[in-house]
Amino acid sequence: MIRYKCVVMYDGTNFHGFQVQPELRTIQEEIESVLRIICKCETKIYGAGRTDTGVHALGQVFHFDSEVDMPNWNMKNAINSRLPRDIHILTVEHVDMNFHARFSSHSKEYKYLIDNGEFNPLLANYRYFYRHKLDINKMIEASKIFIGEHDFKSFTKNHEIENTVREIYSIDFKVDGSLIEIVFKGNGFLHNMVRIIVAMLIEVANNRLSIEKLITIMNSKNRLLAPKIAPANGLYLVSVNY
Amino acid sequence: MIRYKCVVMYDGTNFHGFQVQPELRTIQEEIESVLRIICKCETKIYGAGRTDTGVHALGQVFHFDSEVDMPNWNMKNAINSRLPRDIHILTVEHVDMNFHARFSSHSKEYKYLIDNGEFNPLLANYRYFYRHKLDINKMIEASKIFIGEHDFKSFTKNHEIENTVREIYSIDFKVDGSLIEIVFKGNGFLHNMVRIIVAMLIEVANNRLSIEKLITIMNSKNRLLAPKIAPANGLYLVSVNY
Repeated sequence: MIRYKCVVMYDGTNFHGFQVQPELRTIQEEIESVLRIICKCETKIYGAGRTDTGVHALGQVFHFDSEVDMPNWNMKNAINSRLPRDIHILTVEHVDMNFHARFSSHSKEYKYLIDNGEFNPLLANYRYFYRHKLDINKMIEASKIFIGEHDFKSFTKNHEIENTVREIYSIDFKVDGSLIEIVFKGNGFLHNMVRIIVAMLIEVANNRLSIEKLITIMNSKNRLLAPKIAPANGLYLVSVNY
Repeated sequence: MIRYKCVVMYDGTNFHGFQVQPELRTIQEEIESVLRIICKCETKIYGAGRTDTGVHALGQVFHFDSEVDMPNWNMKNAINSRLPRDIHILTVEHVDMNFHARFSSHSKEYKYLIDNGEFNPLLANYRYFYRHKLDINKMIEASKIFIGEHDFKSFTKNHEIENTVREIYSIDFKVDGSLIEIVFKGNGFLHNMVRIIVAMLIEVANNRLSIEKLITIMNSKNRLLAPKIAPANGLYLVSVNY
């Protein structure tokens, strides 16, 4: 049995997220149906994490096991030649059977793109177009409260029952014309966490929320106090690190 | 009666081109159905030119006449608020009744994007991904034969019956990493002309066609000798000038 690690890029626009759901088009289902042909049997893939409907990936990772022993390059081409145009495998690698796409990862990087300029229909699926002026310096200042280890219970979907403590290593801002790119690095991210944090930062940048209030929300561990969420189309899973 | 000139941007991916066609989704039909609501009657728009299925526009121009007198800014917002996300009006202007989007234009600019690098599913609809190495210097050299006034009959769909003489003012190349951007400026372009020229330039860059043979094809005025066409998704109508 061989374990393959794959890095995959996808345009999330026309998918109902990564994870298989009955009757819906998902990234996992598309890849598994290709592997079923190549490996000649049901082949389950294990992703580093889920992405939601509309969320993109530049470097999502998954692994799968197969009896089929193929050089990395051939396996990559065999999969890509059968995948639809909105998914593309970047690399394939033989890995040790101890490797697990989800459990072996020690950090992840996400980025979120906000465009503060005129709406552009060619980028409509790839940025969050936000009309009102944003005070970037306020966003940067507010972002600092999230750095470090915190209980992010206020910033995830309520139904989470697991441990909600995560460590964010850095939140970096790059401004290029009307484009604001926010890069998040951390040991892991809860469901919807990046999008909820971005929505809160926008509230601060708009003077609708103070940084003091934001700290109170974090300490309250209650999602009801942070009810907003930024749209999925601005979010990218950039990389998963091992 | 007021004549309005509009500059419009669109993502051509999910349209069957600009011009109205029964039962198919077109840019003209989407805009006219919005104007029907705003102007409270059938309102025909006149485009500067057609674009085919999958071709994008950064600055297509059209005009329409209406009894409704609205400030430019309000008309822009009234239209945009009703348009789907893949079309967006950039500017609206009151113009003289002598202005005609098609007949008043004296030049147009198109660009074509070729990506010679790894396929990127997020850009699949916006660039022509071409795997084989291209000799850019050869393309630049070959492009020079098209500059100036020529009969482009070999480089347009055969059914054209009108005058096929056009003047190309310039063809400029910009290379940025794996991206090759080719910018065409001219007094007008025939149906499919840019895409056929791009396909021919790629043939030259691949050593499948000599520049001498390309000159022979131009002089032959016969499309059958230039049967290739580059994909629509790499083509952008950049601007129409008056």
